[in-house]
Amino acid sequence: MNLPTVRALGFDVFGTVVDWRSGVIRDATAIGQAKGIDADWAAFADSWRALYQPAMDEVRSGRRAWTKLDDLHCESLDKLLPQYGLDVLTEDEIADLNRTWHRLDPWPDSVAGLTRLKSKYTLATLSNGNVALMVDMAKRAGLPWDVILGAEVVRHYKPQPECYLLSAELLGLRPDEMMLVAAHRGDLEAARSAGLHTAFVHRPNEYVIRASDTAIEGEFDVVARDFLDLADKLGCR
Amino acid sequence: MNLPTVRALGFDVFGTVVDWRSGVIRDATAIGQAKGIDADWAAFADSWRALYQPAMDEVRSGRRAWTKLDDLHCESLDKLLPQYGLDVLTEDEIADLNRTWHRLDPWPDSVAGLTRLKSKYTLATLSNGNVALMVDMAKRAGLPWDVILGAEVVRHYKPQPECYLLSAELLGLRPDEMMLVAAHRGDLEAARSAGLHTAFVHRPNEYVIRASDTAIEGEFDVVARDFLDLADKLGCR
Repeated sequence: MNLPTVRALGFDVFGTVVDWRSGVIRDATAIGQAKGIDADWAAFADSWRALYQPAMDEVRSGRRAWTKLDDLHCESLDKLLPQYGLDVLTEDEIADLNRTWHRLDPWPDSVAGLTRLKSKYTLATLSNGNVALMVDMAKRAGLPWDVILGAEVVRHYKPQPECYLLSAELLGLRPDEMMLVAAHRGDLEAARSAGLHTAFVHRPNEYVIRASDTAIEGEFDVVARDFLDLADKLGCR
Repeated sequence: MNLPTVRALGFDVFGTVVDWRSGVIRDATAIGQAKGIDADWAAFADSWRALYQPAMDEVRSGRRAWTKLDDLHCESLDKLLPQYGLDVLTEDEIADLNRTWHRLDPWPDSVAGLTRLKSKYTLATLSNGNVALMVDMAKRAGLPWDVILGAEVVRHYKPQPECYLLSAELLGLRPDEMMLVAAHRGDLEAARSAGLHTAFVHRPNEYVIRASDTAIEGEFDVVARDFLDLADKLGCR
């Protein structure tokens, strides 16, 4: 793959680098067992995630001032507590459950793939997750980022073009010197419209309730099976 | 040293982590040799650095809109070109000389000390250098930052309190959960006034034209000879 202008890779994180669904189910199951609460924790994870885009839409539209993702997650969680019997939790327990998003596990190939990619490219998060969330996740999982960029740093949620453009600008790069890596077509299409290069990575196990995105060769600059395949295709040994 | 609340270390970089003066002299000497320009490159490095605080003062005072350090460095360099015979350089050569600040070498103990400190603490840059500068420097020198914070991310130059406070806030931390590590008393005193913990590290070789700052035990939360001594004092093996 010949992409000579690309100097930095910006990564979508939830679903692309880490498995958010299994992580939320794991932590919710654990607190359910500890507190004697019986619920469908997979449905809980999906319900929580379903409130993600609508919460950011309030900020994107300007109806609401900048609010970081930890706070949006917490408000969404509050709405779900009664339905899942979680309204017995203390404030500290709720805050800890909200931090499940800081403790998500990477896909099996993520750390090895990123480590190879890092030898040639600057690796940036380009996520809607806030800085503390990204830092906590990276330290726990060993994700070797060079820099945490994305929504909170530039105060625009993807897929707003400012999120991609201002992240590239912070690296002193033109848009075409950065490539977004993501498992989601909408994110990649927005990045492409902003002038970035694009790499689609298949993550067939992200969802269970609906099919994950797919792409075929040629639809994006790179289409890869996983991060190891991406490293191969970008010539990173 | 018992500092149980501290979870993140924020580092001053120029002078504390890297040796800016030797780096600027090295690159200026090289371009002088390449272009046949004979000048006192140590005096050039000191003259360039002397314009650093006045340039940031324009931004701190509000007389000037936010301007990143790469641009301030470039303007300062432009002022010095004729005096040092550098006005024969092409635009590309000037831009490359300006990037000498992206290519500074760490002090001999910096990488080993940071690597030990990283096992226990989140390591953040808390520098007036801009993001691209910090990222380029870290990749070249192997500085193992968890996150790039500081002036450009929060749009306030140290020693303005916002620079320290908003950097801590991005990590989801109270000011007393962060400690500034610096070789400069003024920086540390400003951080302490903002509520951060403080660690002074001796860097006796930062300047030649004037004495470097010193401190004695008890003047700050920690006073260390270098980053290895700091790691010892913070219990990082």
